[in-house]
Amino acid sequence: MTPSVATFSDSYCLILDELRRAMEAVDPGQVEAFLDALQVSDKVFVVGVGRVMLSLQAFAKRLNHLGIRTHCVGDINEPAITDKDLLVIGSGSGESLVPIAIAQKAHKYGARIAHLGSNPRSSLAPLADIFVRIPVSTKLYLPDEIQSEQIMSSLFEQSLYVLGDAVTLLLARRRDLDLTSLWQYHANLE
Amino acid sequence: MTPSVATFSDSYCLILDELRRAMEAVDPGQVEAFLDALQVSDKVFVVGVGRVMLSLQAFAKRLNHLGIRTHCVGDINEPAITDKDLLVIGSGSGESLVPIAIAQKAHKYGARIAHLGSNPRSSLAPLADIFVRIPVSTKLYLPDEIQSEQIMSSLFEQSLYVLGDAVTLLLARRRDLDLTSLWQYHANLE
Amino acid sequence: MTPSVATFSDSYCLILDELRRAMEAVDPGQVEAFLDALQVSDKVFVVGVGRVMLSLQAFAKRLNHLGIRTHCVGDINEPAITDKDLLVIGSGSGESLVPIAIAQKAHKYGARIAHLGSNPRSSLAPLADIFVRIPVSTKLYLPDEIQSEQIMSSLFEQSLYVLGDAVTLLLARRRDLDLTSLWQYHANLE
Amino acid sequence: MTPSVATFSDSYCLILDELRRAMEAVDPGQVEAFLDALQVSDKVFVVGVGRVMLSLQAFAKRLNHLGIRTHCVGDINEPAITDKDLLVIGSGSGESLVPIAIAQKAHKYGARIAHLGSNPRSSLAPLADIFVRIPVSTKLYLPDEIQSEQIMSSLFEQSLYVLGDAVTLLLARRRDLDLTSLWQYHANLE
Repeated sequence: MTPSVATFSDSYCLILDELRRAMEAVDPGQVEAFLDALQVSDKVFVVGVGRVMLSLQAFAKRLNHLGIRTHCVGDINEPAITDKDLLVIGSGSGESLVPIAIAQKAHKYGARIAHLGSNPRSSLAPLADIFVRIPVSTKLYLPDEIQSEQIMSSLFEQSLYVLGDAVTLLLARRRDLDLTSLWQYHANLE
Repeated sequence: MTPSVATFSDSYCLILDELRRAMEAVDPGQVEAFLDALQVSDKVFVVGVGRVMLSLQAFAKRLNHLGIRTHCVGDINEPAITDKDLLVIGSGSGESLVPIAIAQKAHKYGARIAHLGSNPRSSLAPLADIFVRIPVSTKLYLPDEIQSEQIMSSLFEQSLYVLGDAVTLLLARRRDLDLTSLWQYHANLE
Repeated sequence: MTPSVATFSDSYCLILDELRRAMEAVDPGQVEAFLDALQVSDKVFVVGVGRVMLSLQAFAKRLNHLGIRTHCVGDINEPAITDKDLLVIGSGSGESLVPIAIAQKAHKYGARIAHLGSNPRSSLAPLADIFVRIPVSTKLYLPDEIQSEQIMSSLFEQSLYVLGDAVTLLLARRRDLDLTSLWQYHANLE
Repeated sequence: MTPSVATFSDSYCLILDELRRAMEAVDPGQVEAFLDALQVSDKVFVVGVGRVMLSLQAFAKRLNHLGIRTHCVGDINEPAITDKDLLVIGSGSGESLVPIAIAQKAHKYGARIAHLGSNPRSSLAPLADIFVRIPVSTKLYLPDEIQSEQIMSSLFEQSLYVLGDAVTLLLARRRDLDLTSLWQYHANLE
């Protein structure tokens, strides 16, 4: 299958239309549970693979700007996880090898686990305290998923990016943060 | 200023509405020039800072999937740039210290330079062969920019992410690629 | 236990003395088998955790300079592994969670596996085509290991770094490369 | 010039002999000044390019294990630098483009700057509060430098790695740390 888009306008409209349908399909109650977990955790860790990890890294940067201490698994200054922390896993299928292995370790240390994915019956399900479903097609086919015309799992990765920024905006609001003041926490060397 | 959003729906609608306005404000002719440059270059290099770099890394991954050899500046296996290559710089203001320094070096080696940014009269302007303007507010205030209610430069970073994916989709179409076949180029170890 | 060093000279002498004993304890025959595998593989992939991964990244950079196409697992432009490729795993204990998971996947795709570690009877042993033993203490205690007075697994990580550079030097020699010519493959943008 | 080594033993002996000469040529007084700066700083930032950066990342990991809060420039959770912080720059020539740009910014924010390099009369010299000279040949030729038979700047990168670990060991001693207790600060998810 070749994409049907002919112009730049076709192309971004396809993406933004799919993104809106994906966001509309997310259960706001699951997002609220995720927001609560982010706010009560001592530290937050994020893990994922490939472009999914990039979306989580973008999220991690903003959480740090809001004052929520967040680390990417594998970072140079990654500390030990404890039972006061939250591990956020991005994985559409919930079957990615490395994230599952990390989740098992985090679980052993008593950390809470939030899974952002599309498959509610994955290997991660028994480990996850919180599940936010973004029901878009990834490699598995589930009958109630939004089918995408994009390349590979792009829609999931984009949805994760937008969901992360939407969550951050809500956190800023609930913490009554003045957005102009946040630059003081922003890296200033590059 | 505190964000005005109260619910998850408010929050993602604010983001998607701003994103649509940003994409509509991009000149399709500039995107076509960028597409042409991507297709005729031997290798592509991308550089940016912070979340801008994350958007470019997401773009670089897809270009590699399409068979366009793409490297991030700083990668372990980064080769030398030559006069057959294209350097893609993401920088809203066009004044980021490191990207400018990299652009000057790339220019010295004869590489072509594509700047994706919001400020058309930046320090990068004299060096850029191609400029794709995403006219959204970053740290500078320009009167014809789309003002954003989001945190810091989020709208620019999101726009860059979506623009990259829209460009990739067009490239896949023009190369008549079968999307299901692309998984063969995809990393398979994680 | 507190380190016994009082001066800078004490400190680097302790490190260099331990390093020499570690290198002397490596079986040159195992290194030759590793050299052979590096030379006949289509692509090389490296994986490890923390400082072990940093040593492998330093090695990967040099292999690329010699013209051996090498990728770090997780890199933005990581391609698919095939049965013509070699996966190099650094893990002292041979029990690191993620490297084992990656090794299993690589094995499934038919890639050859080289394990650089200290424990010859690890979970990686049944998967490894090549094993280069650096018999220095890591987290496990094995009676025939060199005990180190350094912090955590520093001696293993240092040994891996030096072993990588020693291997590279031998490869350059066997390929009759002119070292001054290698700069042409070196990244030139930073 | 082709390397003269024929066996693995030749190869690691060449490296370890050069490393010892490099370490012996470092002025212990400069190391002491560096140690002092590391201990009084609020946060430490490290920056370098390529394999030099890898050596600094290995150093940064250990500083964090000792309880000295250390960040790599470019990290996802990089905070703002202030006048209570120390920027550690690794650059043999002291002429690397990006590190110089970063140093200028750090200087503007009032941070102290420690340069680890081989060239005492570089562009970094006027900015550096502390200079630790590792007098080994890099790309420049200075008459009092140790000449290396290794590939490109390998000796500088190795020296930086060993110097970092030697400094860490001294810090652990002076802080009277129990090395076995340090694992509690070590990342535990991979």
